[in-house]
Amino acid sequence: MSKWNFETNRLCQLLGVKYPIIQAGMVWCSGWKLAKEVSEYGGLGTIGAGSMYPEILKEHLQKIQNVLPSNTPYAVNLPLLYPQIQEHIQLIIEHQVPIVITSAGNPKTWTQTLKSNGIKVLHVVSSVKFALKAEEARVDAVIAEGFEAGGHNGREELTTMVLVPAVAEACSIPVVAAGGIKDGKSMFAAMTLGADGVQIGSRFVCSLESSAHDTFKKAILEAPEDATSLTLKELTPVRLLKNAFFHQILQAYQNHASAEELRNLLGKGRSKKGMFEGNLEEGELEIGQVAGYLKDILPAKTILQHILDEYHAIYHQIKNS
Amino acid sequence: MSKWNFETNRLCQLLGVKYPIIQAGMVWCSGWKLAKEVSEYGGLGTIGAGSMYPEILKEHLQKIQNVLPSNTPYAVNLPLLYPQIQEHIQLIIEHQVPIVITSAGNPKTWTQTLKSNGIKVLHVVSSVKFALKAEEARVDAVIAEGFEAGGHNGREELTTMVLVPAVAEACSIPVVAAGGIKDGKSMFAAMTLGADGVQIGSRFVCSLESSAHDTFKKAILEAPEDATSLTLKELTPVRLLKNAFFHQILQAYQNHASAEELRNLLGKGRSKKGMFEGNLEEGELEIGQVAGYLKDILPAKTILQHILDEYHAIYHQIKNS
Repeated sequence: MSKWNFETNRLCQLLGVKYPIIQAGMVWCSGWKLAKEVSEYGGLGTIGAGSMYPEILKEHLQKIQNVLPSNTPYAVNLPLLYPQIQEHIQLIIEHQVPIVITSAGNPKTWTQTLKSNGIKVLHVVSSVKFALKAEEARVDAVIAEGFEAGGHNGREELTTMVLVPAVAEACSIPVVAAGGIKDGKSMFAAMTLGADGVQIGSRFVCSLESSAHDTFKKAILEAPEDATSLTLKELTPVRLLKNAFFHQILQAYQNHASAEELRNLLGKGRSKKGMFEGNLEEGELEIGQVAGYLKDILPAKTILQHILDEYHAIYHQIKNS
Repeated sequence: MSKWNFETNRLCQLLGVKYPIIQAGMVWCSGWKLAKEVSEYGGLGTIGAGSMYPEILKEHLQKIQNVLPSNTPYAVNLPLLYPQIQEHIQLIIEHQVPIVITSAGNPKTWTQTLKSNGIKVLHVVSSVKFALKAEEARVDAVIAEGFEAGGHNGREELTTMVLVPAVAEACSIPVVAAGGIKDGKSMFAAMTLGADGVQIGSRFVCSLESSAHDTFKKAILEAPEDATSLTLKELTPVRLLKNAFFHQILQAYQNHASAEELRNLLGKGRSKKGMFEGNLEEGELEIGQVAGYLKDILPAKTILQHILDEYHAIYHQIKNS
C-alpha cells in the first residue's frame, strides 16, 4: 500500500475521493459552486460555513446536493466558535453531509455527535499538541496547517515544513498538509514530509468559481511576494493582504492600541466587505503567502488538472532517475 | 542529468562535494571542528566567521587546513555587515578558502573580488527579489532561507515551502533550501520544491562537534514545539529560543520601547553569553523552529548518515511505488 498511488492512498479511502486534495473551506470564497467543481473532478470540495447564516448554508447544501451525484463526497468547513454552531450542526446532520472539517475550537465538543450521525470529521491543528488532542477526540484525520496559510492561523507560528513531519510522526490517523500549497510540487513536497494529502486554499480563491469578488482576485494576481502578513495576534492571528485596512492596524499598533481597541477597529463585516464586496481599501482580505506568486484565474478543474499533472511529472521524474 | 542522483547533481558539481548538504555557518556554534567533520563525510562544512575576530578566523582556517586533505571543499560564512569585513576577506583570499557563503548585505560589494580569486560564492536570500539581485551580482548559487530558520532572518517572513519554489523558478543558478530542514524527509521535500540541495543549521547545533555550550544543546532537546519566536524586527529580525532574555524583550515591547532602547537591551556579547558560555537566562539563543523536535546530540557524521539514509529510503519508496 502506497500513498503515492492514489488508489491505495488512505486519505482517498477515508474520504472516498479520487485525489488526496481538499479544497479549503474559506469564508466568502467557497460556496457550493466551487465545492461542486472540485468534488466533481475527484477532489474534496468544501463549503465554507463560517461566513454563512444557517439559512444561507441550507441553500448551499440544497444546491450542491441537487447538482452532485449522491455518492460524490463533499465537505463543510465549520469554525467551532461560530455563534450559531448548533443550527449549523443540525443542518449538517439533516442534510447528511458526508464530511465536516472543524477548526478554531475544541474537537471534543462536536466530534462524537457528528460521527454518531455517520459524518466523517477532520480537524485543523497548528501543533502536535493539538493534533494529539484531536486524535484523542476521535477525529478521522487532522489537517496540519502552517504559518504561511491565509486567514486564521495558530499562535505557534510553526511552518508547514516543520509542522507536518512532526504531526505525521506523532499521529496514527491520516494527516493532511495545509499552508503554502498551491501546485503539484508543493503537494509532492508535503507528502514527502509525511502527509497523506493536502488542503489547498488561496490557489482556489483565484478560480473562476470562487465567490471572492473579482477585484479581490485581481488584487491577488498583482500582489508582490511580501504582500501578506500575520497580524491581530492579540485577538485571533490572521494572515491578510497588506491593504489600507492593514495599515490602519499597523497605525493602531504604533499608537499602542489595546486588544479592545483592535477589536473595535476590526468591527463587524470587514471580511465580507473586502473579499465578497471587493472593497480593497476598507475590507479584510484573508489570503496565504502564496498570493505573491499566483499569476492567473482559472477554472477550478483546470487548477486541479495542473496540480495533478505537475505532481505526476515529479513522480515520474523521480521514478525514472 | 538528475539532481536526485548526486553524481549528476549540479550543486554537488559546483561545490565539489559528494552530497548536496551544506552545514550552515552559525555564530558561536560552527568552528573548524564541526566543519571538518561535515566536509570529511562528503557534505560542505562551514566555519561561521560572524562571531570571530580576524585572528580567531585565521586560527580556524589554519586548523581546518591542517586536518582536511587539500582538495576537500569547505566554506566560510561571512555576514557582509561584519565590522572587520576587509580583514576577513583578506584572510579568506590568503588562505585560498574554496567557498564563501555571504549573507546580510549587498552581494555586489564583494562577489567580484572573491570570484576573481578563484573563490565560489553563495549568497543567502529571503525573497525572489534578492535572489535575482544576487544572480545579477554573479554569485554561483543562492541559499533561499525561510522564516522557520534560526538566527537572523528576512523581513518578508516567507516560509521555505513558499520561498524555495519561487526562487527556483526565477533563478537559473543552483538553489539551496534552508529553514526547517533537519532530516532526510525535509531534505527530499526541499528538493521536490525545486532546490538542488539543502543547508542545515539547527540540527548541527546539536552535534557533538558543534561549539555551542552543552547547556544550550540540552536546552534545545528539552524545548517544546513552540519554543522559538522571530523577534527584534525593528532591528534585524532574529529567531530565538524563548528564554528569560526573550521575555525581557517582550516586556520592553509592552513598555513601548523604541528601536534605540531595544538595541540597548540587546547590548553586546549576548549571543556569545548564551550560545557559547551557556548562560540560558541572559544569553541570546539563536535556533530554528525545528528545535522543538530535536531529540538527541549526535556526532555530525552520524547526523549526516541518518539524513542520507532517510533521504534514500524515501527515494526508494517512491521508485518502488
